[in-house]
Amino acid sequence: MKIYNKQQISTAARLNHDALRAVEEGFVALGRGEVSMPPVLSMNITESNGDMTGEVDIKTAHIKGNERFAIKVSTGFFNNPALGLPSLSGLMVLFSARTGVVDSVLFDEGYLTDLRTALAGALAAKYLSREDSHSVAVIGAGLQAELQVAALTLVRGIDQVHLYARNPERMAAYQQRMSEHHGLEVILHDSARSACAKADIVVTTTPSTEPVLHWADLKPGTHVTAMGSDNSHKQELESTILDQADFMVVDRRSQSESIGELHHFPGEFHGQVHELGDLIARQHYLRTDPAQITVCDLSGTGVQDTAIANYTAGRLSAAV
Amino acid sequence: MKIYNKQQISTAARLNHDALRAVEEGFVALGRGEVSMPPVLSMNITESNGDMTGEVDIKTAHIKGNERFAIKVSTGFFNNPALGLPSLSGLMVLFSARTGVVDSVLFDEGYLTDLRTALAGALAAKYLSREDSHSVAVIGAGLQAELQVAALTLVRGIDQVHLYARNPERMAAYQQRMSEHHGLEVILHDSARSACAKADIVVTTTPSTEPVLHWADLKPGTHVTAMGSDNSHKQELESTILDQADFMVVDRRSQSESIGELHHFPGEFHGQVHELGDLIARQHYLRTDPAQITVCDLSGTGVQDTAIANYTAGRLSAAV
Repeated sequence: MKIYNKQQISTAARLNHDALRAVEEGFVALGRGEVSMPPVLSMNITESNGDMTGEVDIKTAHIKGNERFAIKVSTGFFNNPALGLPSLSGLMVLFSARTGVVDSVLFDEGYLTDLRTALAGALAAKYLSREDSHSVAVIGAGLQAELQVAALTLVRGIDQVHLYARNPERMAAYQQRMSEHHGLEVILHDSARSACAKADIVVTTTPSTEPVLHWADLKPGTHVTAMGSDNSHKQELESTILDQADFMVVDRRSQSESIGELHHFPGEFHGQVHELGDLIARQHYLRTDPAQITVCDLSGTGVQDTAIANYTAGRLSAAV
Repeated sequence: MKIYNKQQISTAARLNHDALRAVEEGFVALGRGEVSMPPVLSMNITESNGDMTGEVDIKTAHIKGNERFAIKVSTGFFNNPALGLPSLSGLMVLFSARTGVVDSVLFDEGYLTDLRTALAGALAAKYLSREDSHSVAVIGAGLQAELQVAALTLVRGIDQVHLYARNPERMAAYQQRMSEHHGLEVILHDSARSACAKADIVVTTTPSTEPVLHWADLKPGTHVTAMGSDNSHKQELESTILDQADFMVVDRRSQSESIGELHHFPGEFHGQVHELGDLIARQHYLRTDPAQITVCDLSGTGVQDTAIANYTAGRLSAAV
């Protein structure tokens, strides 16, 4: 059994085309029905007095015939920043699919989740956005706001970044990070609508519990990826977007309905819902007209975790 | 973060009164509604051709106000014995309930599951069997068949063990183990009915998918603990036992209905179902007459895992 820390893991697995391919292959297997993926196990952690202090999510999946499968634990604890700790943490454990014996423990502290989440955003854009997309609007100024844009550069020639976030200081910090880390200039906006006005791709990356993006914000031809909602109380998109868009795509329909954007749709959703893995497996590009508006809601799936964990463990053991 | 192996763990946590108390306190918290315990996450592992090779269960629970919570992964792989490996394996990870940061990893390879399962059997007998119970019939000759009897000696003056199992060689091996490890003589039987004829307590410990114990096998005054069924295809008790018994007890009703004995009850179960934690929390001994027959179905709960993991980690860190 091998144990790896975040330093080793983040050296072995980077935001690049190899890692993108690994996650893409996971989606292909999912689309082909070759994946066992039980629903997410979630638990709230409360104090004796009932006050909630954090949440734990456990995701897993096995790609049939794969040598290993991963179990991922993610924790999110709200008071951590006050203690000087990051809110999100976690680890992945890889098991042999032949014997159930532990193969390795990846103490990635959430790094691989950040990576595979960004790569799923890139895949959504690869299959749904206009090929000539070059500008992106980001709503939210956290780590994923950075990684989503960096991942988009793997699939589209991004040269313009528009940002809207509620906190001006975080906007400024984001602007500086994007310039330093990625050589990308960021144009700051005072509303989501203003940020979206010149964007081919819009990415929402907030923990919001009410819509941060509205149908009226979107110009024809836009692709939207909403990756913030992963919990039944979170919502980023005005419901109108889901049924007015030309194509509505999710990573996993059952998850979008329980913890993603479809969860908040009033009444039953009557439009067609496509699954990203199915589109990728069939190399099915939905867009038939540059003016169409496409939406993809990502709540994050266990198969992405198993795919990135397998990829990382393979590179780590090859490096030894 | 601390990492412990099975050797260290099995030295720190033994089948004794201290460990029994730790698991009992977990049940008390469950009975008082002080536990968050999501449903078990289960996944089947299959080959490319769809043949199932193993199963994975993930259990977790948090006792409100407790400093740590555990996530337990159990694996069961059917072909392992042919490879010279035990079928069951797994690990537990303890997290801080204040920050979500990993506290320790217990590579117990299933040891703590065996321990807490045996201790739950002892608690069932403590609260349900006649106080003067001294003979036990065991159906099944595996590791739990041994540990359940050893655990019973913590709560009852056991001096007679009757065994029935399908495989005569495993019966003989069990007889020898019980004599060597516990100084207990085992009387072998050629049927469950014969084994039960002189038993005050009956414990079924098989992975059977059809009943191994029938209502007609039980004499008045018997207490039955069924701990084998923990999966929707497993069943040990004839359904008649569940509604003919004077008292029907489970560790967790929702689990018994989905993966335990209640799952196989034809139609709706109309009798009263008691939860063990509730009885323990209220110090409520159901038995009012020595001739009553009591039944307890244990499918194994996350709170037992969190309780034994916390207990063990406490002893391990104190030992350093």
